[in-house]
Formats: sequence, C-alpha cells, structure tokens
Amino acid sequence: MSPVMVRPSNTIVLLTDFGTSDPYVGIMKGVIAGLTPSSIIIDLTHQIQPQDILEAAFLLSTSYRQFPEGTIFTCVVDPGVGTARVPVLVAAAGYYFIGPDNGLLGFLNETKDKTIIQLRNHEYFRKPVSATFHGRDIFAPVAALLARDGAEIIRDLGPEGDTLMDIRERLPEITQTRITGTIVHIDRFGNLISTIHRSHLDGLFHGGTFSVSIKDISVPFVRTYAEAPDNTPCSLLGSASHLEIFVKDRNAQKFLNLQTGEKVYVTGNNR
Amino acid sequence: MSPVMVRPSNTIVLLTDFGTSDPYVGIMKGVIAGLTPSSIIIDLTHQIQPQDILEAAFLLSTSYRQFPEGTIFTCVVDPGVGTARVPVLVAAAGYYFIGPDNGLLGFLNETKDKTIIQLRNHEYFRKPVSATFHGRDIFAPVAALLARDGAEIIRDLGPEGDTLMDIRERLPEITQTRITGTIVHIDRFGNLISTIHRSHLDGLFHGGTFSVSIKDISVPFVRTYAEAPDNTPCSLLGSASHLEIFVKDRNAQKFLNLQTGEKVYVTGNNR
Amino acid sequence: MSPVMVRPSNTIVLLTDFGTSDPYVGIMKGVIAGLTPSSIIIDLTHQIQPQDILEAAFLLSTSYRQFPEGTIFTCVVDPGVGTARVPVLVAAAGYYFIGPDNGLLGFLNETKDKTIIQLRNHEYFRKPVSATFHGRDIFAPVAALLARDGAEIIRDLGPEGDTLMDIRERLPEITQTRITGTIVHIDRFGNLISTIHRSHLDGLFHGGTFSVSIKDISVPFVRTYAEAPDNTPCSLLGSASHLEIFVKDRNAQKFLNLQTGEKVYVTGNNR
Repeated sequence: MSPVMVRPSNTIVLLTDFGTSDPYVGIMKGVIAGLTPSSIIIDLTHQIQPQDILEAAFLLSTSYRQFPEGTIFTCVVDPGVGTARVPVLVAAAGYYFIGPDNGLLGFLNETKDKTIIQLRNHEYFRKPVSATFHGRDIFAPVAALLARDGAEIIRDLGPEGDTLMDIRERLPEITQTRITGTIVHIDRFGNLISTIHRSHLDGLFHGGTFSVSIKDISVPFVRTYAEAPDNTPCSLLGSASHLEIFVKDRNAQKFLNLQTGEKVYVTGNNR
Repeated sequence: MSPVMVRPSNTIVLLTDFGTSDPYVGIMKGVIAGLTPSSIIIDLTHQIQPQDILEAAFLLSTSYRQFPEGTIFTCVVDPGVGTARVPVLVAAAGYYFIGPDNGLLGFLNETKDKTIIQLRNHEYFRKPVSATFHGRDIFAPVAALLARDGAEIIRDLGPEGDTLMDIRERLPEITQTRITGTIVHIDRFGNLISTIHRSHLDGLFHGGTFSVSIKDISVPFVRTYAEAPDNTPCSLLGSASHLEIFVKDRNAQKFLNLQTGEKVYVTGNNR
Repeated sequence: MSPVMVRPSNTIVLLTDFGTSDPYVGIMKGVIAGLTPSSIIIDLTHQIQPQDILEAAFLLSTSYRQFPEGTIFTCVVDPGVGTARVPVLVAAAGYYFIGPDNGLLGFLNETKDKTIIQLRNHEYFRKPVSATFHGRDIFAPVAALLARDGAEIIRDLGPEGDTLMDIRERLPEITQTRITGTIVHIDRFGNLISTIHRSHLDGLFHGGTFSVSIKDISVPFVRTYAEAPDNTPCSLLGSASHLEIFVKDRNAQKFLNLQTGEKVYVTGNNR
C-alpha cells in the first residue's frame, strides 16, 4: 500500500439517490451512530436523480475538496445493487471514498498516489448482507469503522484493486476549436450546470474570448448573476468553476425547457 | 414498573409529517440542543404524508430495530393535537418511543414486557404548552430530558397506561388460501411497499410458490431488482422484508397509477 | 461596543434558499466542521422560495427565540451576492445573526442594545472569496470562528454599522379599524401564514371580537384546528402566534388557490 494515507477524520459525508421521504438515510445514520457515536455526519445531497451515476460523480468530484482532510465520503447511487459490481474504498487526495465501483468514483482515476481496496471482508459488514440495501449493510459500517478505528483497518478490508470504472460523458469533448460539454445537474434555482470547467476554457482559449451556445441559442458569458440582462439566458463560471447557464431572477430550466443530458458548445471568437 | 429498562442512549430519532420547508423540525432540534447539547439527532423522515398515521407506524415499525439500543424515537404525526388524545412514552424492545397515542405506536402492543407512561407531568414540558405544537412543547423536551437524565425520570412523567391505540389496516388479512395487504408507503423510486411481511408468506405458504397481484395485474415474484424483465411490474421482498411492487429502472407508482391504500393479494400456487 | 454580549454557543443554525438537491448546504457544513468540529449544526430550513427575503425574515424572526441563548444564525438568502450589499454580523437579544444586509435581518432594528458589525476583514474569510457563494466563503467561516473563538473576535471582524435594511411589507398596516397583513409563508400542510401577530390583534381590538377575511371570503376565527367545521376556511393563531388561514384536514392553499403576497384583512365587530 504505497501512498501515505491521511488519518481518517470523524466527518462522514453521505451522498445518495435515496431522497428523504424514506427511512434509508436515517437507517444508515443509525448504523453509523451505533458504531461510532462521536462522528459528524453531513448530507451532501440525497436528491440525486434516481440511479443517475453521472450526476452523483459530478457533484462529488466538484465538492469533495471543500471538506476537511480525512473526510470519509460514503456514496450510494447503486442501480446494480445485488449484482456483481464491486464495493470499494478509495484513499486519494487526502480523503476516503466508499461506494460501488460503477462509475461513481471514476473521476479518482485522475488522482495519482491513490489506493483502491475491494471490500470483500464480510467481518466489516452488517449481517446478514441484504440483496437490496448495501448502504446499510456494507458502506455505512465500513465508513463508521474507518472513522472509529483508523487507517490500519484498510489492509484488512480486502484486496487492492487496479482501476475504477468511469463514465465517458463525464469529461467534455475538446477539439482544436470547440468544447462540447453536457448538462449534468440542474440546481434548485433552475441553473443548468455543465461538465465544462474553467481549466477546459483556459486550456483551449488561453484567456481569449469565446462564445457559448446551447440548443442553437447563444448565451453571453458574464462574471456575476447580477450583471446579466433581464430575460436573457447567459452563462458564467459558477461557485465550483463550472460553466452554467442561467436566466437572471428566473428558472433557466423552465425558461429554456431543457433537461440534463443536453449538450453545451463553446467556440473561440475570431481575433 | 416491571420490565428492566435499558439505559437511554443519547441518540434521538425524529419522525414527523412536518416536511422540511417549515422551521418546525429545526425548532424541535433547538429545544433538544438547549436541554442536552451532546445528543445525536437523526431524522428518520419528515415527509410522512400529512396526518398519515398508518404510513408513520409502518416506517417506524420496520426501521426501529436498525438503531442502537436505547435510541429515543420521537414521533409527531398528530392530527388530534390540542384535543384529548394522550401523549405517551413507551419503553419496549430495548428502545424508547415518544408520541401521541393515536395509533402511531400501536404496533408496540405486540411487544411483551413494555411500559406505557402517560405524559401528564407538566414539569417536563416547555411552558406554556401551545394547542398546536406539542412536538416542541411536550415530545422534544421529554425526549431530551430522558436522554440527559436517564430512565429514572420515567416514573415521574405520569401514570402507567394499559394498551396503545392501533390501526386495523396495519396488518394484512390472512385466510387459509390468501393474504390481503395494503400499500402503505411509496418510496422515492416509486416502489409500492405493502404491509405483507416475509413471515406472513412463510406462515401461509411454508416455502411453496405463490402468486402476487394488484388491481387484477399479476406481478411475478423475483429475488433482486436486477433480475426482473423490462417494463414489467414485479414483486420482491425489499430491504425490510416487506413485499413491494416495482418496475425495473422505472417508477412503479406512475407505471401503474396507484396510490397508498391499494390492496395487494397473494395466493398459493397449486402443486 | 456597548451592549453586553452573551457567550456564543456551539449551536449554529442555517437558513438558506439553497434547497437540498445541491451540495451547497453540505459544503457550508463541511467548512464549519473543518473549523470547529464540536459545533452542533441545525437546519432551520433550506426551502425558502428562491430569493424570497421576506419569507426568510418572517421564518427567522418568528423562530429564533426558541433556540438556546448564544445560538448563531447563519442566513443566506442573497440575490445580490457578488454586488455591493454588505455582509453583517448582528449581536442582539442574546443571539448572533450572520448574513447579507438586504432586509433579511431588518426585524432586528426593533431590538434595543444590539451591535451591527460589517464583515470587512478578509482574514476571517475562506480564500479566494468567490462572486457567487458567500455562504461558503464568508458566512460559514465567520459563524464557525465565532463559535470556536468566542465573542472577542467580533471587534476584529470589521467596523460597526448603524442600522439594517428592512422590508416594508414585513409588518401589517394598521388603521383605527382594520389590520391589513400579507401571506408570507405557506406551510407543508398548505396553511397560509400571515404577518399579523397576536399582539397586533390585542393592540387594536383589546380582546373584543373581530372578523378575518381574505379575497372577499370571511374566515371564522377559532382556537384549534380540530374545532373548525369541515370544508370551511378558518383562521387561528398558529404556534408562533401569527394569524393563519387553514381548512381542516385539507390544503388551504389548494382549496383557496392563493399564493404568498395575498392580503389578509381583520376588522373589529360592532358591539
């Protein structure tokens, strides 16, 4: 186990598509509280669209660096629960990530010096392991025991893995003149958030100007929500430095009638 | 007070129909934090359909055993608030339950060696007690004081009660050939969850095969979500061992256009 | 800094319009947990209608007294984020309030012996301060540091301010014969909650009877939900002593087809 691992913190972050009308999230917290009562449990969100692994990967990959070192992210968007997909723990970038290896954690392939562990040792699971609720039976107990007992348990959890499943659409397609991204998340205000990051824009346009469009509509690029004209779809770099489409004081999703999966195009301006 | 009571834990679980767009749940947590700052508060759910005591009783009865011993469940689905229904505390099965005696806690009648206490001693309440918000004024303070001061306060809370109100539809109707259950909860994925438990199936069919139907539609019984054919309503035993109706990768509620209250039938197959 | 300030508690209450489908609230909690892991974080609500400062001010002003002394309210309904509105901390009434000075905290103008501090010292902020997410970059860090380091940091946060922005519609209009209020919040049950407080009714009618109407419909005033007749819009003083319109066992918003902003009228009866 090559990389030096940070000490797991007692902060456990939960990310699921369970919603909050079912007791599933509460039950996961009960399992954690029973094993390590002094942990701090934070909800990232439980409103991932059902089984939308890409949305979960996007929100996690753009959020995790904002948490304290050693935070344990416990992620359950798991359409294949009960089938052969492998539950994993990944130590990377000063954090711990626990979830199914189904693409959700694929963005961590970009991180050097990481350790992937396949969760195969049933001694760390809640028994019996059900066919439908690994959040309760595998992921929550492993997270709690990692928070409680520290990094020394990691080598006991199972064999090392090699690489993580990834999702092709997670990264934009970049040619010499154009970036093609995807709307992966719609926030509460109806803002449409894309896979295109500030670094993609800088890399291609080197600070020069560019044009953004979606569904053949040009959406001017501005710096703050406030400086956009009324009733005009615009784009900006949001708080996570991702390109998003918005309409000032309105719901862009309803204004443009778009869903996740829609493509966004950025092309350089002639100079 | 006959049964030996477990030591109350500092984990308080909240279950209400308050939703999360109002400050009611936050206020209950503020009352608890003011009385016992070291408690852990877990939301089971606050999305019970307004005043749906049966749904709350179902979710609580199928979830509570997953929490650490001594957990204090504080349950407020209370259409009769301000009228004569009695607030109670029940010590049963290694847990504590606090709420109105309106059917919500009736499933505990099945538990032997329980103690029912009518909450009559106003010294434990927040003053003045309002006519509309006993979650804040009675249930949260009693839960917090139980977590803080331990089981010795119980005999001081009020007189012992005898039996708890129950709801007839909470249990399926079982004849020699058929089980008739009720859909009591629809989860975030649109799965339709019934009152029929694995033990009801085992008790009648002794491991033999059986057929499940809802609204004259036969719904094949499978073991995992993954093994169901596409676009076909099927049934399985969910994570709480209750029979549920689902459609793979789709929303069964919308697919079948059903609501809670719908009947589910299970009949044995000829052998 | 004239008034004696209470000791900040380790309870931090969050109030935003961020919803719970985005990671924004979780990120604020991560920032807080990183700075002060022993704090207790309570959600008042994150379902304020997007950018509805009046609704947020109403819910905060009617809830804050229910929390323990020293509670730190961190409030982010902030349509002007990135523009010139001033972030402030207000110490008042035994509590701390942190948020943008855009009307959200204007109700505190009614509190004597308060201290308003303009948050100008970037040493207390998360760097770099973004143009779009001051909840993460300014408000959460200041709240966490106040909880961790105590009231002595306050004089270092920035210069004192004078008065807070307020919203005209926050208080009802009162003539010699009539009170005109506004529906500012619709709760989960569809109850329509107005700006009219018990004290406004007592002040004008001195205990005499009065009539309530909304949209030319008379809504009888009752004491509890239970005593209202079926299918009849009625009014009562809710748990926060504000006048609300309800229909027993039904959703008054749908029954009456009303939105926030609607006017409510109370007139004295002839005697």
